[in-house]
Amino acid sequence: MADLKSTFLNVYSVLKSELLNDPAFEFSDDARQWIDRMLDYNVPGGKLNRGLSVIDSYKLLKEGEALTDDEIFLASALGWCIEWLQAYFLVLDDIMDNSHTRRGQPCWFRVPKVGLIAANDGVLLRNHIPRILKNHFKGKPYYVDLLDLFNEVEFQTASGQMIDLITTLEGEKDLSKYTLTLHRRIVQYKTAYYSFYLPVACALLMAGENLDNHVDVKNILVEMGTYFQVQDDYLDCFGDPETIGKIGTDIEDFKCSWLVVKALELSNEQQKRILHEHYGKPDPANVAKVKALYNELNLKGVFEEYESQSYEKIVNSIEAHPSKAVQAVLKSFLAKIYKRQNSFHSNLQYIFLLLVLTLHYPFGRSFWGAL
Amino acid sequence: MADLKSTFLNVYSVLKSELLNDPAFEFSDDARQWIDRMLDYNVPGGKLNRGLSVIDSYKLLKEGEALTDDEIFLASALGWCIEWLQAYFLVLDDIMDNSHTRRGQPCWFRVPKVGLIAANDGVLLRNHIPRILKNHFKGKPYYVDLLDLFNEVEFQTASGQMIDLITTLEGEKDLSKYTLTLHRRIVQYKTAYYSFYLPVACALLMAGENLDNHVDVKNILVEMGTYFQVQDDYLDCFGDPETIGKIGTDIEDFKCSWLVVKALELSNEQQKRILHEHYGKPDPANVAKVKALYNELNLKGVFEEYESQSYEKIVNSIEAHPSKAVQAVLKSFLAKIYKRQNSFHSNLQYIFLLLVLTLHYPFGRSFWGAL
Repeated sequence: MADLKSTFLNVYSVLKSELLNDPAFEFSDDARQWIDRMLDYNVPGGKLNRGLSVIDSYKLLKEGEALTDDEIFLASALGWCIEWLQAYFLVLDDIMDNSHTRRGQPCWFRVPKVGLIAANDGVLLRNHIPRILKNHFKGKPYYVDLLDLFNEVEFQTASGQMIDLITTLEGEKDLSKYTLTLHRRIVQYKTAYYSFYLPVACALLMAGENLDNHVDVKNILVEMGTYFQVQDDYLDCFGDPETIGKIGTDIEDFKCSWLVVKALELSNEQQKRILHEHYGKPDPANVAKVKALYNELNLKGVFEEYESQSYEKIVNSIEAHPSKAVQAVLKSFLAKIYKRQNSFHSNLQYIFLLLVLTLHYPFGRSFWGAL
Repeated sequence: MADLKSTFLNVYSVLKSELLNDPAFEFSDDARQWIDRMLDYNVPGGKLNRGLSVIDSYKLLKEGEALTDDEIFLASALGWCIEWLQAYFLVLDDIMDNSHTRRGQPCWFRVPKVGLIAANDGVLLRNHIPRILKNHFKGKPYYVDLLDLFNEVEFQTASGQMIDLITTLEGEKDLSKYTLTLHRRIVQYKTAYYSFYLPVACALLMAGENLDNHVDVKNILVEMGTYFQVQDDYLDCFGDPETIGKIGTDIEDFKCSWLVVKALELSNEQQKRILHEHYGKPDPANVAKVKALYNELNLKGVFEEYESQSYEKIVNSIEAHPSKAVQAVLKSFLAKIYKRQNSFHSNLQYIFLLLVLTLHYPFGRSFWGAL
């Protein structure tokens, strides 16, 4: 595993160096230094799971065949394109949300002398993706499909971000807008496409597949991404802060969380009034009222029920897939997220233990019982 | 002319309606209304010269052959992609520059309830370009070239914006950084590629040309774009505010203008001290000192000399081009910008008078004397 990650990080250095010497622009020393620092600050500092999962998925699609150095490089380059995309979203999101920290350091726009230049840096991060694709994939039969894929997924992510932003507009806090349909739509577009579908779609294209033949794969991954976010919403309130690595503030922040949406659905009129009165206020007393109502409505049990059903539905969909290799890819994703108690990225060893187990044992509900 | 513009505006309505019903996203009514208003506010309100010049250029490349409705639609769609690109840059630039007005109305991010959601709207504007291209050009032999072209030009523009931003960093006002090389680089990347090269490149691709064979066309258009910006810098100080439609503030704003760069080049030590002391300060007394120095250095004459030489160089390059049709395209651009006394967009009738004359009369220095 350490090997895979260090190989992946080596590819980052190669890609960065190519971007700093891109013949489409005449770099001055100042400009080169700026980009160098901006990339190191924003791109490789996450847990890199999205990027690494392109390589994992491609390996599984090749069914144990040893990958050539060239294949590892190309799968890594696509993985890095997703990390670049993520960095672009995060730099801009932090400006829009006026955030303070990201990945344990100040947000890029808060770094001295950066300020709103960060918005243009976000644009540059986004522009690096087609540069990387052109440098390494121009001439491949799937080049245009890669361009279309990244374009479509970016469009979907920005559209998801838009509905999230316009439903939580300042000064228009209106809980009645929060429905399961809206929640699912935000999650699907803002997170699931780029975090779950995009890595697998990249691997499929590299393996010579036509994405039009894999709409079912897309649907399963979007379903998993949705489940993942519901779980994230659940852990924000019910998870152990020690384990999830943060103190949740969704209630204070008036977030369109799965929990509040479910609570609204299950509440009687009097309970609804409690939500309207106390949701989205910073005072701990308000937060406590909301949490008490969540317990009264047994949202823990409701979540566990949702979790089982979603799991069963996803497993059935996966097992209905004709290709064993594609099944392996999808199961590896499921193993990474199902019944976690921590954040997606906080326990790589655990994740990869599951991945290895998944590939060596028959997969089913009983497998989970053994852990 | 009125016909061409109204056809062009009809195409906008078609494209907008397609975007509002894009099957890649499930629009809610709120989301559709937001995008509808955002597009109308930001996209069609400029003078549309960049967009219209795709159609003009394509017509000239077809050497008088009547265009089919389909060709007019496609050339217009490409023209709109450039207008969308421009809208995206302007929305983000206005946030970065903390500007107040744009095209005679408040900047988008200053509209109530919009705020920094404007940053995501900018991203959406950018994402609409590949949606438009996919809707109308997927399957054309030049589809991938269009994607590569827009990607490369956007990258160049954002890179030009970066060097502009980092050389005028707050609190680091340092005139000694301002050189002709830096000025040329900012202008070339930030303005010339997308405003001058991109419209012609779109027309060339539609006409079936390979852009690799037209590096000379690119160079000529970048040269014209550079000349255009030098002229803009000149008019900011020496133009008649009535005619150019604004009161220039480049001196107050510490802009890396061609005038200050030339002044630095021509100054002795004592004159340099005047510039360092008075450039970039809001007080009219400081501005007056700088203007007095500009006159002392005869920058008016220096500009006129530059203008003649640049004109001659461009005309010679154009006349060296093997294709008469391409010559006509380049001359139409030259006619739009040479020896103007107003901003690029403020006098359409004048521009098109020149264009028509250019196409009917032998082209050369004497032609200009006749006006």
